[in-house]
Amino acid sequence: MHAGSSGLAVRQAARDGRLSGHTSGLATRQVQGNVVILPADVADEFLRYCQRNSKPCPVLGMSEPGDPHLPVLGADLDIRTDVPRYRVWREGELVAEPTDVRDLWRDDLVAFVLGCSFSFEQALLDDGMQLRHIDQGRNVAMYRTNVATVPAGRFHGPMVVSMRPLRAADAIRATQITSRFPQVHGAPVHIGDPALIGIADLARPDYGDAVQVMADELPVFWACGVTPQAALAAARPPFCITHAPGAMLVTDLLNQQLASF
Amino acid sequence: MHAGSSGLAVRQAARDGRLSGHTSGLATRQVQGNVVILPADVADEFLRYCQRNSKPCPVLGMSEPGDPHLPVLGADLDIRTDVPRYRVWREGELVAEPTDVRDLWRDDLVAFVLGCSFSFEQALLDDGMQLRHIDQGRNVAMYRTNVATVPAGRFHGPMVVSMRPLRAADAIRATQITSRFPQVHGAPVHIGDPALIGIADLARPDYGDAVQVMADELPVFWACGVTPQAALAAARPPFCITHAPGAMLVTDLLNQQLASF
Repeated sequence: MHAGSSGLAVRQAARDGRLSGHTSGLATRQVQGNVVILPADVADEFLRYCQRNSKPCPVLGMSEPGDPHLPVLGADLDIRTDVPRYRVWREGELVAEPTDVRDLWRDDLVAFVLGCSFSFEQALLDDGMQLRHIDQGRNVAMYRTNVATVPAGRFHGPMVVSMRPLRAADAIRATQITSRFPQVHGAPVHIGDPALIGIADLARPDYGDAVQVMADELPVFWACGVTPQAALAAARPPFCITHAPGAMLVTDLLNQQLASF
Repeated sequence: MHAGSSGLAVRQAARDGRLSGHTSGLATRQVQGNVVILPADVADEFLRYCQRNSKPCPVLGMSEPGDPHLPVLGADLDIRTDVPRYRVWREGELVAEPTDVRDLWRDDLVAFVLGCSFSFEQALLDDGMQLRHIDQGRNVAMYRTNVATVPAGRFHGPMVVSMRPLRAADAIRATQITSRFPQVHGAPVHIGDPALIGIADLARPDYGDAVQVMADELPVFWACGVTPQAALAAARPPFCITHAPGAMLVTDLLNQQLASF
């Protein structure tokens, strides 16, 4: 498994149990996705939540109830086996972290695949930009904001953002580039003073790892795929399966195919 | 003359002497341009300067030597009569401010029309954004930076920028919108700390009027059409005609026709 692997090769490795960890740096041309699997009745609410909050919750694909396949994201794709590691939740409590959920599959389950920042980060890297958390081998810094998402049914909660420090010229260029990718969070949601979106201290992220913001840099904030996870944690559905953090579904879609112009 | 006037109507008013002042707020759908008229030998150098510094000096049109017409910008357009007020320069010194330059026209003169921020400001206003200097009836604040333009022949000098204070969400949206208009300065060149581009005090612009930057706003800086004027002042060509500040050439091009996507 490496940066040039195909989506299929990564999925096969996950299926065969050869890959059970994170997918960062693998199949870098392919779109990776956040996975949420819910019973059909909760799924309807979750879809409404995503529709109302498409910037943090962009739906790349959604299965039919009971069908574990998502052919638009990969002809062979089986959502029960192709994620390297899963998390299983009951009533909002984490109960298992298996590498395969075939034994948990049900006729009423619906799988969602949501866009992820890996896609737009790759577009930034391809443009020659440097991203500090990647240079330092850290997870991106993420923060809960005071910006509320639009609720739907039992789903609600704050927008979570990821932050990347960039010099002004790169912040402008990154805004241009990520604007082309609305299905993977799109343009930034905030630039500059973190207090204006309710972030008290950049050095203390709510998720991920802190990185330093230099004197000649601006903190640039994007809507983050942890937002739906926070909404799921608040909603506490009776049953839910997600990917484990960093162990994403690798699709056959190319990042470049998501570019809107 | 009003916001809905045609380009032709404004040019005819300038031609007839009915309009001899600024064109701000007139024919707002049409592209307005900065005008620079130079002898052919200096014009070649100036064109090279504009080519190397296309963000502050975007050339929308250029006449043949001795030909006062620019049919790509207006079928009837006559650059000797259609600008409401001109400035005539000899060896870098302002010598006259006529409303017509037919008596000064020569067989070796070349006219340049350069894009102007009115076009992208209109796109921002059309998007529902508020611009403080317009709300307050002031000229935009402009600053000489410590960013040098790329020299060409005798033309050189600092990049001049215009500044508009915007909240972060508007700064992001304005970056998206103005990116679509590369021929009228395009995306911002800087956002945030003015000191990073050599501006000591936002309250003391080098040209135009100061406006306040509120605590929840970022100063957003665009390359400015005053840059070539500063380069002309430094070059001191033997002869030069420009538009008088604010009294622009109104063309038949629509702002929207400059949108790149």
